[in-house]
Amino acid sequence: MTLQKKIMLEDSELPKQWYNLTPDLPTPLNPPLGPDGKPITPEMLAPVFPMNLIEQEVSQQRWIDIPEPILEMLASYRPVPLVRAYGLEKALGTPAKIFYKNESISPVGSHKGNTAIAQAWYNKQFGIKRLTTETGAGQWGSALAYASALLGLECKVFMVRVSFDQKPYRKMMMNTWGATCVPSPSTETQTGRNILAEFPDTPGSLGIAISEAIEQAVTDPKGETRYSLGSVLNHVMIHQSIIGLETKKQLAKVGIKKPDVVVGCCGGGSNFAGISFPFMYDKVNGADIKIVGIEPFSCPTLTKAPFLYDHGDVARMTPLLPMYSLGHTFIPAPIHAGGLRYHGMAPLVSAALRDGLMEARAVHQSECFEAGLLFAKTEGIIPAPETTHAIAGAIKEANIAKEEGKEKVIVFNFTGHGLLDLVGYEKYMTGQLKDYEYPAEEIAKNLEVLKGYPLPV
Amino acid sequence: MTLQKKIMLEDSELPKQWYNLTPDLPTPLNPPLGPDGKPITPEMLAPVFPMNLIEQEVSQQRWIDIPEPILEMLASYRPVPLVRAYGLEKALGTPAKIFYKNESISPVGSHKGNTAIAQAWYNKQFGIKRLTTETGAGQWGSALAYASALLGLECKVFMVRVSFDQKPYRKMMMNTWGATCVPSPSTETQTGRNILAEFPDTPGSLGIAISEAIEQAVTDPKGETRYSLGSVLNHVMIHQSIIGLETKKQLAKVGIKKPDVVVGCCGGGSNFAGISFPFMYDKVNGADIKIVGIEPFSCPTLTKAPFLYDHGDVARMTPLLPMYSLGHTFIPAPIHAGGLRYHGMAPLVSAALRDGLMEARAVHQSECFEAGLLFAKTEGIIPAPETTHAIAGAIKEANIAKEEGKEKVIVFNFTGHGLLDLVGYEKYMTGQLKDYEYPAEEIAKNLEVLKGYPLPV
Repeated sequence: MTLQKKIMLEDSELPKQWYNLTPDLPTPLNPPLGPDGKPITPEMLAPVFPMNLIEQEVSQQRWIDIPEPILEMLASYRPVPLVRAYGLEKALGTPAKIFYKNESISPVGSHKGNTAIAQAWYNKQFGIKRLTTETGAGQWGSALAYASALLGLECKVFMVRVSFDQKPYRKMMMNTWGATCVPSPSTETQTGRNILAEFPDTPGSLGIAISEAIEQAVTDPKGETRYSLGSVLNHVMIHQSIIGLETKKQLAKVGIKKPDVVVGCCGGGSNFAGISFPFMYDKVNGADIKIVGIEPFSCPTLTKAPFLYDHGDVARMTPLLPMYSLGHTFIPAPIHAGGLRYHGMAPLVSAALRDGLMEARAVHQSECFEAGLLFAKTEGIIPAPETTHAIAGAIKEANIAKEEGKEKVIVFNFTGHGLLDLVGYEKYMTGQLKDYEYPAEEIAKNLEVLKGYPLPV
Repeated sequence: MTLQKKIMLEDSELPKQWYNLTPDLPTPLNPPLGPDGKPITPEMLAPVFPMNLIEQEVSQQRWIDIPEPILEMLASYRPVPLVRAYGLEKALGTPAKIFYKNESISPVGSHKGNTAIAQAWYNKQFGIKRLTTETGAGQWGSALAYASALLGLECKVFMVRVSFDQKPYRKMMMNTWGATCVPSPSTETQTGRNILAEFPDTPGSLGIAISEAIEQAVTDPKGETRYSLGSVLNHVMIHQSIIGLETKKQLAKVGIKKPDVVVGCCGGGSNFAGISFPFMYDKVNGADIKIVGIEPFSCPTLTKAPFLYDHGDVARMTPLLPMYSLGHTFIPAPIHAGGLRYHGMAPLVSAALRDGLMEARAVHQSECFEAGLLFAKTEGIIPAPETTHAIAGAIKEANIAKEEGKEKVIVFNFTGHGLLDLVGYEKYMTGQLKDYEYPAEEIAKNLEVLKGYPLPV
């Protein structure tokens, strides 16, 4: 065969260490702050997370050994192929070589399993018996249910009520893996009961669901329950670095020393960190690589928000995190890429943007679905709505390469398939999709709630 | 890492030839017969299929070169991993080594893409512009839509109305790949209009949908349309042989000369042929391999039906095929494994059973969903309802190995994931599933319609 489409790695070639960007940041990471404005201590997080993950959260170590049992579980589906998008290249008429890292072949259909497996394993090691979490569209809840099944942990997922009602398949997935999934707000927590008493018909929100999941974890009288988060936190970014580390090995296999451009979509930041941080390591060490985060215009955290201290959730249960944020009260328009509808951004990704290691671009969902359809027809895989943002970004870069007449190497993260999110395509194809954009004044107004908050320096 | 979970192959290791069981059958294959009881000629099939596929259908050649462009398209997702089911083995406490061929990672989520790509390519080579087909649950229609998109062919899918209404996601998938999907019976064909006039509320059937698809192909005044079938026919079995051929290479990589047991589920026969025929080649040449086809009790073609000549469809549009058949009027109970609800069996698989190259076993869907849940919790992937039949078969063989205390090598075909078929799991978990079994008299009675048909000798 003349063409090589996929670059594969053997199980034995799985990276043995994760990469942590923290020590390589040009400016040190600002610490998370407690309600008193002082840096929080590991002990303060102990009721929420197991200590071994808290240690990872604050780690300054560049390379972190991946425990053998985690490697073995990851090997159920990893390494995943790096695929050359010949069909897409041809359709675009670009001289660029486009590669995508196909995270969609995992049992959960997205990259979320990479950290779910790691988090479940660390919790089990620490003696934890039960995990709680929240989920919006259901990707993360499914992934944690999957990992909990593999490790024999109980798993309880609070799913935003409107998604719970609209996406029954997601609940069934979690049930099939043995997890419990309840609509949030629920009657199982004080937070939920309070909200239901006041707003019995509320559609719920991620903020409420996070509050319920944390409450249920910290109020377990036996102390056997912890909370698990699928993005934003440093340890999640560390776990996802396996994506980019595999990609580097795969590029090396076909003689490519470095890509010219790396593209990822940005919601909470975890898949973007996964594909890009290992390349930021090269960039810090002198390599010339353009790294681009793509976000929706309807939630323009990286492109229109300031860098400041804000809560990770609407209910302000989390510490203050140093990040680009639209304000914890910001409610993004209901685009189909539910995983990108987050008011803030992982502190590590935020720091990378602040320090010039990456750039960011916002796109409309119509452009993304158009890109997704082109991808489905040329490469065959139907992308998740989140993933279409990365594709739109890669197409833009391929068109720039075409204008410049340069044979650039473009790599993007294909985070997941869209087989459970086809309604967005249906609406796009039948002309029912709206694009959303926020004027600067509206964003500024929403940020007023943060007046008086400490500022990262 | 001490364990090797996946055995991978590079793109360059893709098999370059398909395997055709026909010349290796102990008894020659009986020919398909026309309405007059005489063997049909290739010319008679020409309005339905392109001549290059008809030549493959009647080929006596053992090894058939895979055209390079087909290899390149297959390389989008093939070779697929052969995975060692350590988690399942442990749960069963078996000394057996269980391997599964993971066909679920293809863009369509099942093995159906393997022949869809080949058929679409041969049609395009022959100058065909449009393909028609039928689909029940939607797997095959999706696969042909996918392949047609890659090749720039139009694709029209007649989907059994009850599934069309119940499974809107399948239609959206096909639309996303640019195909048209209409509920059958439709008003677009004479067959459909006649049936709707008589039974306006009919839920439809595969037989009706096949008739509509064939009618639309053969009545194209420009002659640019052909019909495509996802199973049963010899050329489909040939295309699927790539599954078993890859598996043999992968077993050889870890030093396994031959498996002791090969298991596949049986509907029309294509995935079963795919995994097992290359091993039947070894069996014909002296190897001791147990090959087991698993079918549902609710459609016991291999275990309770006679070997005879019957039509492939309810409307009797197809030639008479030599096969095990419950009679073309047989309507299997509505189990969730829609892909296994077929009254007949591929002539090549039927011949293999008749000639003792394989054995068959029927299972109840409750046993299958139990096996599927165990698999989801131990190996992580949620299987399609069809696939759970193969898992139930493999578990049975693993338990036999346990009783015998033998370290047998068991290989089964993991045909597809169940992410779009979760309702079956939900019903099983909530105690709403029924098992079905047909008494011999009922089967005999249904076969009366075949009185006077010629018999294969």
